[in-house]
Amino acid sequence: MSKNQINFQEKFTKITEQWTPRVIAQMNDNQFKIARIQGEFVWHKHEETDEVFIIIEGTMNLELRDRTVNLQEGEMYVVPKGVEHKPVAENECKILMIETQGTTNTGNVGGDRTQENDIWV
Amino acid sequence: MSKNQINFQEKFTKITEQWTPRVIAQMNDNQFKIARIQGEFVWHKHEETDEVFIIIEGTMNLELRDRTVNLQEGEMYVVPKGVEHKPVAENECKILMIETQGTTNTGNVGGDRTQENDIWV
Repeated sequence: MSKNQINFQEKFTKITEQWTPRVIAQMNDNQFKIARIQGEFVWHKHEETDEVFIIIEGTMNLELRDRTVNLQEGEMYVVPKGVEHKPVAENECKILMIETQGTTNTGNVGGDRTQENDIWV
Repeated sequence: MSKNQINFQEKFTKITEQWTPRVIAQMNDNQFKIARIQGEFVWHKHEETDEVFIIIEGTMNLELRDRTVNLQEGEMYVVPKGVEHKPVAENECKILMIETQGTTNTGNVGGDRTQENDIWV
């Protein structure tokens, strides 16, 4: 638990790689994770938790099976648990995700895009 | 659950009063609430939940019993459950709060600043 304020852009200076979520805060059993994303991720879903995306900088598309949700800076979206989604960003986008502690980035599919899910910056 | 993206500033156009938290999203049993704040709130604490403050626009001070945390746009802070705090803002500040559904704004103290806690915009 940080004793000081948490500045999103300052936290982003601590990660340079893309698609590597890092925890910046915890509220009850929920974790706040930042990530730089660019290109296409994999289709996946989280059976145990809803997942919030908040755009800190840039723009991204959240592809769902029946439509695509475009997200800009200052916008958020809640992916309900069990709903398949694929994040896509043409240019690098800085995002904040909120989900239950222990949630893996690739959800039900695993594979080589999987990251450890409890690394703090 | 919104089927579309949620734009913070667009949601703020739907509230004009200060100190009236309104729900804009829910993630599992957590609610995302926006509020306009200006002036001093009351000292209170939430025994059942941590409480996240994210600054959307402006600046505020989160007074704690042992220090004051200044929060600017693009910053967040987690008030741990059971910790007394008092939000203060010299000029109007737009904030996003995240806490367990059912949390009352005045926490343990109640009083005439208390608002209904499950009104959506």
